Amino acid sequence: MSERNHRITFARVPRGLPVPEDFGSDQTSVPAPGPGQFLSRTIWLSLDPYYRNVMKNSQIYADRLAPGDVMVGETVAQVVESKHENFRVGDYVAVRNGWQQYALSDGKGVRKLDPSLAPISTALGVLGMPGLTGYAGTVFLGQPLPGQTFVVSACTGPVGSTAGQVARHMGARVVGIAGSDEKCAYAVKELGFDDCVNYRDGDLAEKLRKACPRGIDVYFDNVGGDTLAAVLRNLAMQARVVLCGMIEAYSMDKPPPGPSLGPVVGARATMKGLVVYDHMDRMDEMTRVIGRWMKAGTFHYREDVTEGLAHAPDAFCVLMRGKNFGKSLVRVGPEKL
Amino acid sequence: MSERNHRITFARVPRGLPVPEDFGSDQTSVPAPGPGQFLSRTIWLSLDPYYRNVMKNSQIYADRLAPGDVMVGETVAQVVESKHENFRVGDYVAVRNGWQQYALSDGKGVRKLDPSLAPISTALGVLGMPGLTGYAGTVFLGQPLPGQTFVVSACTGPVGSTAGQVARHMGARVVGIAGSDEKCAYAVKELGFDDCVNYRDGDLAEKLRKACPRGIDVYFDNVGGDTLAAVLRNLAMQARVVLCGMIEAYSMDKPPPGPSLGPVVGARATMKGLVVYDHMDRMDEMTRVIGRWMKAGTFHYREDVTEGLAHAPDAFCVLMRGKNFGKSLVRVGPEKL
Repeated sequence: MSERNHRITFARVPRGLPVPEDFGSDQTSVPAPGPGQFLSRTIWLSLDPYYRNVMKNSQIYADRLAPGDVMVGETVAQVVESKHENFRVGDYVAVRNGWQQYALSDGKGVRKLDPSLAPISTALGVLGMPGLTGYAGTVFLGQPLPGQTFVVSACTGPVGSTAGQVARHMGARVVGIAGSDEKCAYAVKELGFDDCVNYRDGDLAEKLRKACPRGIDVYFDNVGGDTLAAVLRNLAMQARVVLCGMIEAYSMDKPPPGPSLGPVVGARATMKGLVVYDHMDRMDEMTRVIGRWMKAGTFHYREDVTEGLAHAPDAFCVLMRGKNFGKSLVRVGPEKL
Repeated sequence: MSERNHRITFARVPRGLPVPEDFGSDQTSVPAPGPGQFLSRTIWLSLDPYYRNVMKNSQIYADRLAPGDVMVGETVAQVVESKHENFRVGDYVAVRNGWQQYALSDGKGVRKLDPSLAPISTALGVLGMPGLTGYAGTVFLGQPLPGQTFVVSACTGPVGSTAGQVARHMGARVVGIAGSDEKCAYAVKELGFDDCVNYRDGDLAEKLRKACPRGIDVYFDNVGGDTLAAVLRNLAMQARVVLCGMIEAYSMDKPPPGPSLGPVVGARATMKGLVVYDHMDRMDEMTRVIGRWMKAGTFHYREDVTEGLAHAPDAFCVLMRGKNFGKSLVRVGPEKL
């Protein structure tokens, strides 16, 4: 093949929001497939916010980029030469060609596409990884019930629009969050959302309070940061928050302040709020169980006693500085008169 | 009754860590019980970090304090006069008398104590609300399995020492976090923890990594803030984080930076991390379900197409600024040659 392969390359780690100068470009020769490989020409390149995180070259992604490397990315392509038994010239495939016109593949992780079922570009959007993200996060993690309020950020993007529409099909009341009135109008008119809030316009927490008068039962979070904070202030009891994307943090050079929730996603972890008053009916059970362990000598406790009510303020100040040792108590009077 | 009632009062909202001047004191006459009430004399006053939060006079607690009001708080007391049919003179009770020597009660929320079962002071600690908090949070929310690694902060306090010892009785490997070597030695030698890390001494995340080589399966969080952040960096897959207390934030005049997790606790909410790669086996299901909705005209999508690979960097910069509208795609080549 005599054609050249135009590639967009990684030039440097961006500072903050990326700029075009963070990328380079070159032309290479088009490679020829070896045994078990095929060559495909890229038709559609998907642009996804997580690429910005890959460009940080931190260790959470398998892809590591050196300057001059072709940018990674999902594509839809057509097989133009094949020495792979499962792929034939003319096949349309979803494949990680990256930001270039031609690439080789060994077929691993490649999906064949049927262009008669849906436009092939949807394999990068609603019928691809973004769609699966919105679908799985809503159906298996968020699990909105009919009538519950489901809120989703970046709601006109491929993940958010899928999540919101899946929730609508599950019977939920869907409220989107987007960055312009035009996007909000689209969410309500085209996507069928019940309401949509423009986060660039006014106090988001207050606007959500009005749009979700009974609180937010499920939040599908694609952005993190201030948007997440505003939603958390409007949660309904027993709410579920699906942590999916943290776009706000992707362009930060340092981790954002406060506990980073990124590792929570990485670990597929669950965070739950505990309020002891919900468990008051277990007081007798707890007393019985721990009492038995105390009698058996396998459960211990320690008290840090201050004598006299007048010293309670001092003792409290000690407690708040973590200088007490054991349960902090003030002896106000004798046990027996 | 001719005795006076010594009281410690709320003087002002503290700035940062409380100081003794944030409190006042006075003497009042001892009140007499009316019908359905009893009078008790305070024996033990419990000091708990959440009082600092009450002193903020924010709206999350029912108790609101004006200057001169007696400080709220849990106590163990003895009934000295009663016009209540269920409480008799001499009875020991767990009652919210606050920071004062005498108080009236109508009996609501009052627990009678049996002094032959355990020291009555334990009704404020391991056999009271702190014990119930540690017990319920571990048994019903954290649910450590035998052999799993259970980490608890403020681990020599009444909540933390209960949580850790309950986890030990459930078969977990227990690692404490405390603020001194002395406390850590106590946690290991007396409470039977497998290990304990002093958060004041060195890089906590790194020390936890060494103490928990297979990661942290359950974290019982009593402090929030930097400690929580260090734990999150060491979570095992499918970890559970029980958000119980946020002592670090109680003494802050402003909310700490980053999304506040306080509302997550208040709403008893669940936060879950979503990683789409865990759901790859659902790709066909998703395509079938959403494909059907698309055919029925009840599911919509939108694409934001940039023409030509050379413009991909520009399009990516637009995407990262939230200025795209719909799924961001670059047309690299024609669908058909």
